[in-house]
Amino acid sequence: MNEGREARRSIREGRHRGHTAGLARGYVQGNVCILPAEYAAEFRAFCEANPKPCPLLAMSQPGDPRLPSLGEDLDIRTDVGRYRVFREGTLSGEVSNIKDLWRDDLVAFILGCSFSFEEALIDAGLPLRYVEQGRNVPMYRTSVDTVPAGRFRGKLVVSMRPFKPADAIRAIEITSRYPRVHGAPVHAGFPEQIGISDLTRPWVGDPTEVREGELPLFWACGVTPQSVVMDARPSLCITHAPGHMLVTDLENASLAQA
Amino acid sequence: MNEGREARRSIREGRHRGHTAGLARGYVQGNVCILPAEYAAEFRAFCEANPKPCPLLAMSQPGDPRLPSLGEDLDIRTDVGRYRVFREGTLSGEVSNIKDLWRDDLVAFILGCSFSFEEALIDAGLPLRYVEQGRNVPMYRTSVDTVPAGRFRGKLVVSMRPFKPADAIRAIEITSRYPRVHGAPVHAGFPEQIGISDLTRPWVGDPTEVREGELPLFWACGVTPQSVVMDARPSLCITHAPGHMLVTDLENASLAQA
Repeated sequence: MNEGREARRSIREGRHRGHTAGLARGYVQGNVCILPAEYAAEFRAFCEANPKPCPLLAMSQPGDPRLPSLGEDLDIRTDVGRYRVFREGTLSGEVSNIKDLWRDDLVAFILGCSFSFEEALIDAGLPLRYVEQGRNVPMYRTSVDTVPAGRFRGKLVVSMRPFKPADAIRAIEITSRYPRVHGAPVHAGFPEQIGISDLTRPWVGDPTEVREGELPLFWACGVTPQSVVMDARPSLCITHAPGHMLVTDLENASLAQA
Repeated sequence: MNEGREARRSIREGRHRGHTAGLARGYVQGNVCILPAEYAAEFRAFCEANPKPCPLLAMSQPGDPRLPSLGEDLDIRTDVGRYRVFREGTLSGEVSNIKDLWRDDLVAFILGCSFSFEEALIDAGLPLRYVEQGRNVPMYRTSVDTVPAGRFRGKLVVSMRPFKPADAIRAIEITSRYPRVHGAPVHAGFPEQIGISDLTRPWVGDPTEVREGELPLFWACGVTPQSVVMDARPSLCITHAPGHMLVTDLENASLAQA
């Protein structure tokens, strides 16, 4: 059986309760954002205007919990391990399914996540320091504006990974082939140019050392749409809890351009 | 008619006598290196072991001046505007054809050149400062060893182009799609790591300013094989004169990977 589907089933049935990092290796995992239909057109426009931070993999029909392009049996009400529920932009709780919260007007958006390109980097022999150190990737809120759409607007959030120069070039080459999961970095080398004054103080995640002679690379980050949506204070928004992504049936390799 | 062929004919007939930069835009130009057959297997092995500085586009049969894969009517004895003749590694003269020097044992090697990827950079809106300033690209002999093959060995020569970080990322993305014309850069950001102590003093070409907040990118350069061949002091070596490349019938776009 498709390992992505198998992992998703074990999450649905409560057999897997932890994070999804490293689960169903080779399969695409996605960021989840569920909004009432009245926000859907604007959020879709926001994603389309900002494909690097918001690479839209799939979008459901209003009220329909299925996302068949990502998995034949996928049910967004049950297939994420932990959900966060936000009302008016404020966290109101975490739940392990949203069957009771589901409504006829909800639309699920699934956005690509950096796990896919990180797997390609690791496969190419490029070390990810934050993984080696068992920490979270450092994320920074930049001074760079996203392209606004309707009620959605805000600053770009980036994740940072340091590399030696030759590895940095390889990392750019490899991730540029994955435009559906953030693509190539948005910046290299000069954090102050994008409004990051102190690399040791990430906005989210853990600081990662940038060693002498290394280039810090900055990728557009899937936390951007979360930050933007919360700022818009929608009546209801349901997301995955950090680290509990939606596992799909798609293979990462299927996202790579030739 | 194919503009590459047209340009080559006007060179052959002496109607075009100048440099080939900007000639037959869109068509591949090549570095030329002609060696006696006794060196051919070793030089081919050197190129294959060092594809970034020595991207081999075509190789003739011994004594055969034609290179049909690059142009049906191509004759390497007449189709370059100016040739340089080296004996025992020393320049013995420049000529406008090599009909009298041609021998049954000569083998012509044609290597890709950066004109092809520079055209792609310019088409993408990325400015090349040395072109804007009407100068030559700066080239540096690095501390990086090429992979030796037979009598051919030596240091990698690189060309340098500075870019703002976002443009540098685009330049890496674009040139990585052109592995047959040097491909992605070999280094970014820290010239001292590859043995370049002073960017203002290139080995060949003109210095180019690297401005505050720019990343210098370093590409493997077609001067590398020339430098390596001269150090091997072959009995005879004929090359194009600087700026007088071989114009082919191939379109640059045909070298791009999807």
